[in-house]
Amino acid sequence: MHPLTLRDAALFTDLYELTMAAAFFREEMRETATFSLFARRLPPTRAFIVAAGLEDALEYARGLHFTPDAIEYLRSLGRFEPEFLEYLGSLRFTGEIRAVPEGTVIFPDEPMLEVSAPVIEAQLLESALLNACHLQSVLASKAARIVIAAQGRDLAEFGMRRSHGTDAALKAARCAWITGFGSTSDVLAGRAYGIPLSGTMAHSFVTAFGDELEAFRAYARAFPDSAILLIDSYDTLEGARKAVTVARELAASGHALAGVRLDSGDLLTLSREVRRILDEAGFPGVRILASGGLDEHDIASLLAAGAPVEGFGVGTRLNVSADAPSLDLVYKLVCYGDRDVLKLSEGKETWVGAKGLYRSFGPDGLIAGDVLSLGVETPPTGSVSLLQVVVDEGELLRPHPSLGDVRRHCAGQLATLPDQLKRLQGHGEYSVAVSPGLRARQERAQAAVGAPRPG
Amino acid sequence: MHPLTLRDAALFTDLYELTMAAAFFREEMRETATFSLFARRLPPTRAFIVAAGLEDALEYARGLHFTPDAIEYLRSLGRFEPEFLEYLGSLRFTGEIRAVPEGTVIFPDEPMLEVSAPVIEAQLLESALLNACHLQSVLASKAARIVIAAQGRDLAEFGMRRSHGTDAALKAARCAWITGFGSTSDVLAGRAYGIPLSGTMAHSFVTAFGDELEAFRAYARAFPDSAILLIDSYDTLEGARKAVTVARELAASGHALAGVRLDSGDLLTLSREVRRILDEAGFPGVRILASGGLDEHDIASLLAAGAPVEGFGVGTRLNVSADAPSLDLVYKLVCYGDRDVLKLSEGKETWVGAKGLYRSFGPDGLIAGDVLSLGVETPPTGSVSLLQVVVDEGELLRPHPSLGDVRRHCAGQLATLPDQLKRLQGHGEYSVAVSPGLRARQERAQAAVGAPRPG
Repeated sequence: MHPLTLRDAALFTDLYELTMAAAFFREEMRETATFSLFARRLPPTRAFIVAAGLEDALEYARGLHFTPDAIEYLRSLGRFEPEFLEYLGSLRFTGEIRAVPEGTVIFPDEPMLEVSAPVIEAQLLESALLNACHLQSVLASKAARIVIAAQGRDLAEFGMRRSHGTDAALKAARCAWITGFGSTSDVLAGRAYGIPLSGTMAHSFVTAFGDELEAFRAYARAFPDSAILLIDSYDTLEGARKAVTVARELAASGHALAGVRLDSGDLLTLSREVRRILDEAGFPGVRILASGGLDEHDIASLLAAGAPVEGFGVGTRLNVSADAPSLDLVYKLVCYGDRDVLKLSEGKETWVGAKGLYRSFGPDGLIAGDVLSLGVETPPTGSVSLLQVVVDEGELLRPHPSLGDVRRHCAGQLATLPDQLKRLQGHGEYSVAVSPGLRARQERAQAAVGAPRPG
Repeated sequence: MHPLTLRDAALFTDLYELTMAAAFFREEMRETATFSLFARRLPPTRAFIVAAGLEDALEYARGLHFTPDAIEYLRSLGRFEPEFLEYLGSLRFTGEIRAVPEGTVIFPDEPMLEVSAPVIEAQLLESALLNACHLQSVLASKAARIVIAAQGRDLAEFGMRRSHGTDAALKAARCAWITGFGSTSDVLAGRAYGIPLSGTMAHSFVTAFGDELEAFRAYARAFPDSAILLIDSYDTLEGARKAVTVARELAASGHALAGVRLDSGDLLTLSREVRRILDEAGFPGVRILASGGLDEHDIASLLAAGAPVEGFGVGTRLNVSADAPSLDLVYKLVCYGDRDVLKLSEGKETWVGAKGLYRSFGPDGLIAGDVLSLGVETPPTGSVSLLQVVVDEGELLRPHPSLGDVRRHCAGQLATLPDQLKRLQGHGEYSVAVSPGLRARQERAQAAVGAPRPG
């Protein structure tokens, strides 16, 4: 069972979802609406999105219901008619959801998911679906950059302390794992998701002893085969020499020091000097881990300069997605009944209609072009359809993929990215084509609301 | 009851807290440790921190316990001795916590809270206490800037969809309310914290009807006395004219249109033109609300230019604290037994010892200087002590203040800030003095670990 439970999750919504629902109810508007959840644009530092949070989104949809307590609270607001509240009390999600598999790489305007359901049901999902998909797509997209930068070096997610709350902390571990991190420090996340745990020691452990060597020895006594010593509390090179002492003592009793961690200072210079100290003492197998406010750029620089670092601990800047803490992810009505709809608000135009999304690959296996079309159009020859029906009549069509499957899928997705999209800075743009059919429907819908035709 | 429950919260921790605890246990280190939770430095865009998250932090400490399930999971990791796991099973927090009242303005190096407890208990609190205090202090500090910028205009927090998960969404509503926002759109947060709810309508409501006027009329029928119409779906000025039509129809039946919302475009120009349309039609009482990716700078600019906007809806950039999504908040061991301790890691030096924190005020009532001292020193004459004992022997000394009390306290705190600290850009620095006693103890501790004396 998940360690974090949201009671009365149906109330985890913006008030206007409920007031709009009340007005739809009053007007007897019950036709099927299609909403599309997509990113309008990317932050400048993102070339792609790793779609994540879909399992939570689907679980929210299929579990949607208002408890008597929730109804009672809504009644207490004095805003809603009794008939509407009664209707809400029996409301369940009965619609269809199409989604890309979690861990799929997508681009602006490409739906991560689409919901087709009676308009009230579909509307009521907006806030919670966005919350789930936004958080995890933000985190997975950031983590993917770090995975790319680390070129196969071991990565540990250990930023729970500065994640935005409990939910974000758990999800950071999940998203880091999906994209290729090797472990998390978050024990609860480890249990919840079956992610390997890792950890070293804090400065407080060293300073509690006062004597650094005694601290190292004490830790090695407790964990003689897995100790990673934090050597920068006072003087890093002195710390490295003390680590050698402990490594010798461990070796003498048939154990082995696992590693040392550098958490401050010039990590390139220090890692080289520490490597030399360890190697000269005969401990080439003692790993050097680096941490301390690192992000993908720091890791790339260290590795480009040849820093002898075997693993990185990444925290805050991953866990809050420091350079891009939000995505412009939206949930927009694109069809109501048999009528395509769109808004024209400046800079916020949307594509009409339920979508198809198809991807083609080059002979090298790399992605070669996406087509955004209407769901009813014929897919481009040889393309892969990214949107799949995952919920029908309110029920999951198959179990969620295991986290291991999502991780493998995501690795496969990242492997299809051309170098120019994997660049950490100055990345290229990926071309998403719009099908002629979608473009024609868009123009008809624009004409219907009196918009000028695109030039 | 809080809508979000974290089961086995004791596992919501970094693995190293548990491995360090195991080593402390093995070494029979049971003396009292004092940890200090403070910000090392501020992001460039922050002149102060609004301390928040303390209620959650204290509840975590006093509720700390490992369930049999949690112990079983730890056992399954194969890292811990049975004796230690047995000890963990009966562990409770028995120590003391001193904290500033929630909503207090603090500065770098000033403890938000300090924990004095047997070292294992105090160490095990680190990750969760940081997570709670970090999230809410980030959010409250950002919200305070928006409150300052809004100069008394009404503020609605409505960014739950892009908050980092469920916990952050609830806490954003709480923190915005603490600092002076008037409402939230998050229904669950409204119920959990007793915060007034507000909301308007989404573009989907308008586009579902297709005919904007019909959409407005339908919403007004459902909410004839509280309707706020979103008028930018197609053409904002046309939307304003249709709002006038609805305002007339409402007036004819004894009701009143509450307001209109602008969510895109040039908000200054549009708000003026919309105001003119409403006024000329005889509806000076219809309020104009503005939204659309706004932050404190946008709000300040609009108001400085005289935009006739009565209220602002603020979302994403508040909810993720876009310009500063993290604070360099740390939890550092400052004393073990009767020995002051510190680390010397480059750029991460800490002040030793359990602290006193005192604030003086000028004749104008504004803050005039803080002193960071040792807890045992005599407070400066006429100063106010900011740190208070709130937990003793593991028990709360008094109930948590109500959220209303926290809100009033925070308003009082913001009122003591001089203009130069309230500036949104190019703010001044506030001087935190270090007492001679603390400085002397620091130098003795540095000498004990062989550090050079500060120059």
